[in-house]
Amino acid sequence: MIIYNPKDWLHAVLSFHRSETIKKLYPYLILMAIYAWAIAYLEIEYLKLSEKSWLRNIPSMHSLLGFVLSILLVFRTNTAYDRWWEGRKLWGQLTNNSRNLALRIESLLPEGDKGNRSFYKKSIPLFASTLREHLQSSQTRFMLDEKDHPEFNHLDENKHGPNQVAAMIFKRTDTLYREGVISGDQLIILNAELLSFTDICGACERIKNTPIPFTYTSFIKKFISIYVLTLPYGFVFSLGYFVVPAVVFAFYVLTSLELIAEEIEDPFGTDVNDLPLEKMADNIRKHVGELIH
Amino acid sequence: MIIYNPKDWLHAVLSFHRSETIKKLYPYLILMAIYAWAIAYLEIEYLKLSEKSWLRNIPSMHSLLGFVLSILLVFRTNTAYDRWWEGRKLWGQLTNNSRNLALRIESLLPEGDKGNRSFYKKSIPLFASTLREHLQSSQTRFMLDEKDHPEFNHLDENKHGPNQVAAMIFKRTDTLYREGVISGDQLIILNAELLSFTDICGACERIKNTPIPFTYTSFIKKFISIYVLTLPYGFVFSLGYFVVPAVVFAFYVLTSLELIAEEIEDPFGTDVNDLPLEKMADNIRKHVGELIH
Amino acid sequence: MIIYNPKDWLHAVLSFHRSETIKKLYPYLILMAIYAWAIAYLEIEYLKLSEKSWLRNIPSMHSLLGFVLSILLVFRTNTAYDRWWEGRKLWGQLTNNSRNLALRIESLLPEGDKGNRSFYKKSIPLFASTLREHLQSSQTRFMLDEKDHPEFNHLDENKHGPNQVAAMIFKRTDTLYREGVISGDQLIILNAELLSFTDICGACERIKNTPIPFTYTSFIKKFISIYVLTLPYGFVFSLGYFVVPAVVFAFYVLTSLELIAEEIEDPFGTDVNDLPLEKMADNIRKHVGELIH
Amino acid sequence: MIIYNPKDWLHAVLSFHRSETIKKLYPYLILMAIYAWAIAYLEIEYLKLSEKSWLRNIPSMHSLLGFVLSILLVFRTNTAYDRWWEGRKLWGQLTNNSRNLALRIESLLPEGDKGNRSFYKKSIPLFASTLREHLQSSQTRFMLDEKDHPEFNHLDENKHGPNQVAAMIFKRTDTLYREGVISGDQLIILNAELLSFTDICGACERIKNTPIPFTYTSFIKKFISIYVLTLPYGFVFSLGYFVVPAVVFAFYVLTSLELIAEEIEDPFGTDVNDLPLEKMADNIRKHVGELIH
Amino acid sequence: MIIYNPKDWLHAVLSFHRSETIKKLYPYLILMAIYAWAIAYLEIEYLKLSEKSWLRNIPSMHSLLGFVLSILLVFRTNTAYDRWWEGRKLWGQLTNNSRNLALRIESLLPEGDKGNRSFYKKSIPLFASTLREHLQSSQTRFMLDEKDHPEFNHLDENKHGPNQVAAMIFKRTDTLYREGVISGDQLIILNAELLSFTDICGACERIKNTPIPFTYTSFIKKFISIYVLTLPYGFVFSLGYFVVPAVVFAFYVLTSLELIAEEIEDPFGTDVNDLPLEKMADNIRKHVGELIH
Repeated sequence: MIIYNPKDWLHAVLSFHRSETIKKLYPYLILMAIYAWAIAYLEIEYLKLSEKSWLRNIPSMHSLLGFVLSILLVFRTNTAYDRWWEGRKLWGQLTNNSRNLALRIESLLPEGDKGNRSFYKKSIPLFASTLREHLQSSQTRFMLDEKDHPEFNHLDENKHGPNQVAAMIFKRTDTLYREGVISGDQLIILNAELLSFTDICGACERIKNTPIPFTYTSFIKKFISIYVLTLPYGFVFSLGYFVVPAVVFAFYVLTSLELIAEEIEDPFGTDVNDLPLEKMADNIRKHVGELIH
Repeated sequence: MIIYNPKDWLHAVLSFHRSETIKKLYPYLILMAIYAWAIAYLEIEYLKLSEKSWLRNIPSMHSLLGFVLSILLVFRTNTAYDRWWEGRKLWGQLTNNSRNLALRIESLLPEGDKGNRSFYKKSIPLFASTLREHLQSSQTRFMLDEKDHPEFNHLDENKHGPNQVAAMIFKRTDTLYREGVISGDQLIILNAELLSFTDICGACERIKNTPIPFTYTSFIKKFISIYVLTLPYGFVFSLGYFVVPAVVFAFYVLTSLELIAEEIEDPFGTDVNDLPLEKMADNIRKHVGELIH
Repeated sequence: MIIYNPKDWLHAVLSFHRSETIKKLYPYLILMAIYAWAIAYLEIEYLKLSEKSWLRNIPSMHSLLGFVLSILLVFRTNTAYDRWWEGRKLWGQLTNNSRNLALRIESLLPEGDKGNRSFYKKSIPLFASTLREHLQSSQTRFMLDEKDHPEFNHLDENKHGPNQVAAMIFKRTDTLYREGVISGDQLIILNAELLSFTDICGACERIKNTPIPFTYTSFIKKFISIYVLTLPYGFVFSLGYFVVPAVVFAFYVLTSLELIAEEIEDPFGTDVNDLPLEKMADNIRKHVGELIH
Repeated sequence: MIIYNPKDWLHAVLSFHRSETIKKLYPYLILMAIYAWAIAYLEIEYLKLSEKSWLRNIPSMHSLLGFVLSILLVFRTNTAYDRWWEGRKLWGQLTNNSRNLALRIESLLPEGDKGNRSFYKKSIPLFASTLREHLQSSQTRFMLDEKDHPEFNHLDENKHGPNQVAAMIFKRTDTLYREGVISGDQLIILNAELLSFTDICGACERIKNTPIPFTYTSFIKKFISIYVLTLPYGFVFSLGYFVVPAVVFAFYVLTSLELIAEEIEDPFGTDVNDLPLEKMADNIRKHVGELIH
Repeated sequence: MIIYNPKDWLHAVLSFHRSETIKKLYPYLILMAIYAWAIAYLEIEYLKLSEKSWLRNIPSMHSLLGFVLSILLVFRTNTAYDRWWEGRKLWGQLTNNSRNLALRIESLLPEGDKGNRSFYKKSIPLFASTLREHLQSSQTRFMLDEKDHPEFNHLDENKHGPNQVAAMIFKRTDTLYREGVISGDQLIILNAELLSFTDICGACERIKNTPIPFTYTSFIKKFISIYVLTLPYGFVFSLGYFVVPAVVFAFYVLTSLELIAEEIEDPFGTDVNDLPLEKMADNIRKHVGELIH
């Protein structure tokens, strides 16, 4: 994740950070420019199409459908952003709950109980780092795929990581209750924290293994492609060779929105704009270390 | 559900997966092409309508109303997507709660209590698979229909499946409490998990048996049909025979949005884009099996 | 409520169900047609307005304001749909909580306690049916009206129905606790369910007795009326007598959105698209009967 | 608040209720009419601007920016409506929680305990009416203002009203627990209700003392003003003297949306469309009286 | 934060408060005016471009893309406003929970226990003011940055402030429980309040240290810049020198939306429109002081 000064326009406008869509798109922008130029050349110099040609009115169709494309793309970006922000909220809760559990453990355990303290000091941050690995493995992405994945068969031995860590913490906590170290009231309190760990894990898995329905995303891509590729035919009549920068710019704007959505809809990947899971897991380790002595 | 690489444009644009709207629409796209061509032929070659014909200005009406149609369809798709995502969240919670219950049961039960362990090991995943059957039976879809459904009368003997499983689990848990195997504090903890099972069932039923109000969906379909069918009359004047691809494309875009909405608004069906309930129920069985020994 | 097949376009497009806006609107559509024809006749045949008349440019104003009207109406419909869906969620929760309470009661009460069982078997579904009557009485609609309603004075004797049923259930449950039939832990569990009954009642009342602010709805109706009534004046110049179907169609589209919103914003009425409260209350009775023996 | 029949169009369109924007706007509508007429007169009769004047193309700018203005205003109204509806929800919860607390108190207290019963019978509705006064005093509105408010200094003696009532109820409830009248389990149950009282108070204060950021609202007002004031210059060329009704109507539509937003964004005022807090507090008194004998 | 009268248009339209975008933008508005004038001069007087120049049709592209820019900016502002409002809600909850904790402490502690009372009287408001400092330090902003920040290394000694205060309160409360001053039931009640303190802290940190993804914001800035800078070229043909005010106004509108979003998306800064954290922390101190005697 990039932390930046949102008020610094000059940097935002002039920089071409490797995460930016313009960086990914530039070969296609050049192709698009050549394509638009070729059509302009063909229509103006070669075919010498007259002002009467029916092609000149095609832009009326583009403006009719441009609206639905625009609003669709803005909604698409917002849906993707909601997933990204939900992912951020979940890891925020994980941070909070790790802290809260540490706070509670520290004050519940009797003074001097080094053994249990060091157990929780290790296992709480372990949940976060196991979850990070779990979310970034490609096995998790294909969890709900109905096709077979023979490439993961050899992994099936490995059980679900975060579940194992959670089971370990649950077990130790129940032991403390049975041994009378913590009371029933305190168990209820701890339990709410513990459950939230597995709930957060499940919610993260949901975002990871459930992309936007395929029909939807495939429709948007088909729509953008046909829309942009037919753009130059009609606009040559009104813009002449200016059709080249105009079409390139329209292509840049429309595909960028889709590309941004693609990048942020899976917030647990390793793209530059994805969430800094490693940093967050480190912060959890640091905070828990500060709170349990 | 199809798991795909969202960044693979080539595949998305060129493939014609059986789930895609273009696959379902193509006979209608051909009909539309013939219809548009017929009108173009009629107006240009046969009637030889002059430039002065009032028909030529009809597109001004299409552009006035095109906006409200576009925004309506985008909202429609988003409302449907919200239902789909809510369905996914509910099954995500079911997965979590099944895991949590298993985690708790495993650590609450005394070591070596094979009998109760194997009860929960079977009945927790049973809830998920019963719920799946319940949601996919057409009786559930007509639960709130005010018309009689004599075709389901012979089924009325069968009581509500998921309720029966939940009742069984509740009963066993209360027995454990009465026998002193679990304490009052632990009962409160288990109870919250148990209640969420029936809450999830109810929420899934709600999505299944309550479609978008009929007036609303019927209005949208009437609107699209009239809009698209009147499109060629006016545009022939400005586009000539190009009206054929233009109208076919507009038809594809507008009806696709409605078709996508139709497919995802009921996430518990057996369409290709519906949720993989069977896979999810399997995963629950697998996870619970790992957690209860 | 109408349960229908969302994928059946033919039926949706050709049917004119009594719930549909077109059924309600058709006298006005005819009036609108006559009105538009009269204006067209006046301007074309009688006044013989020239192409230079300033009236011909009025549509530029309609297209400037058409956008704000469209987006306003789509938002209006969505706000109304949110109320309808919230109402559906509340009755879904009522169904769930009735089931949950029945499940708990059945397993908490000692075997053979027929008396208490039959009390809960009757009173739980009674809450749902009392709530239905309460929501459909017009007294509830005017609960927050600041004007006097002398017509309800003779009813003031009748106390708030659902409250009375809830009080009865609360009382019996506390008696069970005092008699030691249920423990404190179990009381806490039951209590959460009981409170949700009155919370659901309150939330339903809120939707029932608080319409969209009057200024807002009155503004939208004024806006649509002026917009549609001024539509033919300018469009006669570009559409001639085609202005009649065009204006009728625009009128149909814009008023339909408002009519749909009006119908679904109060989900507890007895319109065809309103929620099937009676059916739902029956289902609750059926489920509770199955769960408490 | 005005309770009305949403299906009565005739009343909505023809009435000019004092709450409506048209009532507030009409002097400005007249001014606007004079202003537009003056510009039309100036451009047509006096300056006799030719068709070639660059002024005639200014509307292209209005249509470019009209879109962003429209969508901004519709969002503005919806944000304001959300605040209004949140306020309504909060008071709905207050009603529910007052009822629930009364229900619980009535069944928890031993039969014949007149003293405590009459305490709660008085103090529960007192919270609602104190909150109403608190929300309608202008001191609450300026709670977060960073400027000094010497005019409230003499009030500073008065402590926070609703807090005092809540403290009183909390104290009495803890006394009941200490005296053994209610058990620990029952205290937990009552406590959740009690806390919600102060939470509701805080959330209402938030809506009251935090308006939309000043930059945002000031920007919208500047935008509307400049937009509408420059409207007649260009449209005179296409509409002639018809520019007068057209501009007046556009002015009416655009400013109405902002005026409606202004009125409903603070739901606790005493405008006609604000929430009927007094009526609601009365209803709470009535219901609590019915439930505690 | 500025508290203002939303109904005072005159003040909003004519004032140029230092927080307003027009104040920040005015040097750029002047630059823009000069730039637009230079292009107009160049095209009209110097190049004397004919009506046939292809440049004159460039605005058709601006109107095609103007829509997507408008809707993108309005969504951008709304997303930023949601963050601002979420921040306000969190501090509202902090106020409520501080009050609630004070209310509970006051009534739970035995009469005359001055020592514990004064501990909570000091430490509850201390949490709020420590949180304020924490959120306004720039170290918090860079918490998730993946780059090294050597400038904060010397600060690493300082542990996480709000966590330390929370740990202190937790510890004291557990001590009270161990000493038997408060019962287990009361501990559960207090605990829920205590946990919400650290949850609020975590949620505030999330808003502070996670800006909108960089690609997204950088794309919007690039889009606005190119859009506005190319605006005058084509519009000179239709507007002549009127292009200067028109382009300046478009520039003002479009960049203002982005500037407002930038200002309110981080509600914990020290901009004029940011939340009055200091005032709020003061109010907490005042209220807690009133409630704990």
